Amino acid sequence: MNIDIGRWKHVFKLDPDRDISDSALERVCMSGTDAVMVGGTTGVTFDNTVDLLSRIRRFEVPCVLEISDHDAIVPGFDMYLIPVVLNAGNPDFVVGQHHRAVKEYGPMMQWDQIAAEGYVILNSGSSAARVTEARTELQADDVVAYARIAEKLFRFPVFYVEYSGMFGDMDLVKRAAAQLERTRLFYGGGIDGPDKARLASEAAHTIIVGNAVYENLDRALETVRATQE
Amino acid sequence: MNIDIGRWKHVFKLDPDRDISDSALERVCMSGTDAVMVGGTTGVTFDNTVDLLSRIRRFEVPCVLEISDHDAIVPGFDMYLIPVVLNAGNPDFVVGQHHRAVKEYGPMMQWDQIAAEGYVILNSGSSAARVTEARTELQADDVVAYARIAEKLFRFPVFYVEYSGMFGDMDLVKRAAAQLERTRLFYGGGIDGPDKARLASEAAHTIIVGNAVYENLDRALETVRATQE
Repeated sequence: MNIDIGRWKHVFKLDPDRDISDSALERVCMSGTDAVMVGGTTGVTFDNTVDLLSRIRRFEVPCVLEISDHDAIVPGFDMYLIPVVLNAGNPDFVVGQHHRAVKEYGPMMQWDQIAAEGYVILNSGSSAARVTEARTELQADDVVAYARIAEKLFRFPVFYVEYSGMFGDMDLVKRAAAQLERTRLFYGGGIDGPDKARLASEAAHTIIVGNAVYENLDRALETVRATQE
Repeated sequence: MNIDIGRWKHVFKLDPDRDISDSALERVCMSGTDAVMVGGTTGVTFDNTVDLLSRIRRFEVPCVLEISDHDAIVPGFDMYLIPVVLNAGNPDFVVGQHHRAVKEYGPMMQWDQIAAEGYVILNSGSSAARVTEARTELQADDVVAYARIAEKLFRFPVFYVEYSGMFGDMDLVKRAAAQLERTRLFYGGGIDGPDKARLASEAAHTIIVGNAVYENLDRALETVRATQE
């Protein structure tokens, strides 16, 4: 499948470590979202990733894997997104784990199916922040600088502003997005229904809806149309 | 001046913190080298960088700055190279310092004059290794994986294998260079005369001659022709 990240406005993110019923999964995959991203911070294994992929594959929606653990790299996704956590305190999450994965899988990697995401994690209370030892005390100027680094120095196709579990500062997101010419700004965090989806879509190029799928599916599904308005 | 890194085979690297006479500098700049790179690990200041630039500018050779300290970013170079130390143990040298510099200078940066270098530092005894807390215990497979990351994930124009003060393993360098399609492999370390220049040129795309300029200038100058043979 030919994947064009540049056209994504809305993405559902599903966590292999969380349960979802067949009927809920069908509604997510048939929602009109631009893609389903599989990924999580903890408890992601090869087995639960394969299982979720095979269930999503019953539908036509593009399905991409955001790699969080190199033991859970499963073949058969349309694309692979590799987070590079720009504000990680632990260099393992900037390049260390990537190095181990590329050392092991490098010769068989299909690089045209792989895209790096320059991540900035902003919610200090999230598990993503804890695991990566992220320096979350950032002002808008800091995030703008990371956006420039992601696009200009690292030439990443994606710059991902992650508030993970809380709705973030949309002015900050808007300022960062305004710096970017080609790199796409993904925003994730606290989009629990159509109102926040609308606000986030005005600030970011692409919005990611995750937790809401598990917490209030009806409202999560309404975020798709809100993004397209 | 239009700078094409892709054509460089030989570069002299001059350290603003070391003394060089006018006559020695003239011989370096008139040697036929493809470029003079200004850079060092310690003691680099705005003043000594300006001073060296203004002396090199009397000649026509392309002159680029490898930024090591954001207080020593001097305008007027033909190009700016920004090291990203892929095997740094301290995340400051992967992206932290870059972030502070871009935060301060971002709005006025001319990105078409800036290129990132994915560095791997391999001599554990060098000051570059100490300062960056580099993980230097690397096998050829590790360096090949870093080369892939530099080109495929980060899309850096330069992958720099730095043995800093010792002549490295040319088989390792050759294997890493063989992985690269567009990214240029720079090799630096221990090139003290034409024989090593020849060996290094067979393995790397571009060789960097630094210390030899200060230790034995006649032999250093012979490395230019050795590279062109």
